[in-house]
Amino acid sequence: MTYCVGLKLDRGLVLMSDTRTNAGVDNISKFRKMFSWQVPGERSIVLMTAGNLATTQAVVSLIGERVRHRSASKPSIFELPTVFQIAKEIGAMLKDTIRDSTPAGQEAETFHSTLILGGQIKGSDPRLFLIYPEGNFIEASEDTPFFQIGETKYGRPILVRAYDRTMSFEDAVKLLLVSFDSTIKANLSVGLPVDFQVLDTASVSLQHTGRISAEDPYYRTISEGWSDALRSAFLSLPPYSF
Amino acid sequence: MTYCVGLKLDRGLVLMSDTRTNAGVDNISKFRKMFSWQVPGERSIVLMTAGNLATTQAVVSLIGERVRHRSASKPSIFELPTVFQIAKEIGAMLKDTIRDSTPAGQEAETFHSTLILGGQIKGSDPRLFLIYPEGNFIEASEDTPFFQIGETKYGRPILVRAYDRTMSFEDAVKLLLVSFDSTIKANLSVGLPVDFQVLDTASVSLQHTGRISAEDPYYRTISEGWSDALRSAFLSLPPYSF
Repeated sequence: MTYCVGLKLDRGLVLMSDTRTNAGVDNISKFRKMFSWQVPGERSIVLMTAGNLATTQAVVSLIGERVRHRSASKPSIFELPTVFQIAKEIGAMLKDTIRDSTPAGQEAETFHSTLILGGQIKGSDPRLFLIYPEGNFIEASEDTPFFQIGETKYGRPILVRAYDRTMSFEDAVKLLLVSFDSTIKANLSVGLPVDFQVLDTASVSLQHTGRISAEDPYYRTISEGWSDALRSAFLSLPPYSF
Repeated sequence: MTYCVGLKLDRGLVLMSDTRTNAGVDNISKFRKMFSWQVPGERSIVLMTAGNLATTQAVVSLIGERVRHRSASKPSIFELPTVFQIAKEIGAMLKDTIRDSTPAGQEAETFHSTLILGGQIKGSDPRLFLIYPEGNFIEASEDTPFFQIGETKYGRPILVRAYDRTMSFEDAVKLLLVSFDSTIKANLSVGLPVDFQVLDTASVSLQHTGRISAEDPYYRTISEGWSDALRSAFLSLPPYSF
């Protein structure tokens, strides 16, 4: 499985992904699921992937090849004029990759992947998209300001309750770590380390990039502290009586 | 969907179930998913159901018919000597009902149900079982002291962290309400009111039985208070810095 979250804040985007992949519980590997491309000050693009690893690696390789070997007929994500156009292009790549992997007449579900795309082009606000295996996509809005892919359920309640569009980048990373910790504690197929990227609207750049491992002292503080904090929160509620 | 939880405590069992059933999001009904039978002081049995409603209703009717019309060849849950034997009998009923519903040569999954059985017979401790559609079952232990069926993920993190085998019945109901509230807020197919039963070891009886609706003042306090408590818990964790 996988867990990735993209948050849209007033000051930019914050994205986090885990690194565990599995083909059965007895075949676990570590793969990066977050990829970024940028021309600082001009455009920043971040992609997170869930689902079939062969599919997502092919899509990421295709994006990279087009960036390196430009052609007028197939514009790269560095040439397309809007993040919407980039989402459309990546959606088409995803759909084509899945179709090419699927033997004729069979179900494609094994090869499915879902993507979260965050990006900004100078002169516009950052945009956050969820791209489906069918190649179509939806955009985050004020009503739905974040997207999750993979194992989304365990980590959702805290996101729903503590997310605030005006929060700082630091608070957003903290919130994501709590959400990831709940998921990691519950599902073996989501695992540390986690990668994160912060896309800052003002500078049109990937301001902070990092990887947080199981040994990270801050992660350990959050992981242990959250259990205590949850228990205290529970105790703070009034008692029930029959 | 459905959400049911059975907790095993030192002083007895606490069980809670929602009441929403659905066949698609546009066909929602309210059905009780918790059923109990008891001879106070002698034996108490509680059953919770998830899955195909026709299957679970048939099993519950069968149990009731056997209790009312006793026969030497087919002992009822009031005659079987142990809760293990009761689990075995109910598991067999479940398996047979699913098999009888399934057209020959087809997959049975549509007709599947999963059950949680809690029970106590005078002279023994209460036991808690999770019964699978195949008719086999597992028993709660010190390592795994609670079972969930249905939509289990949203409400699991708080159970894992705040459950304590020495907790009071009142605290257990409060904990279950928090877990149910997280689930209800996230999944439309789980809904109020919720039913609960408390099986008290000392008296071998269903000591407290009740239904909590959306208008219940205590539920509203928990539902609103938990959002605030979670936010406070989140704020109490140390800040992240890049």
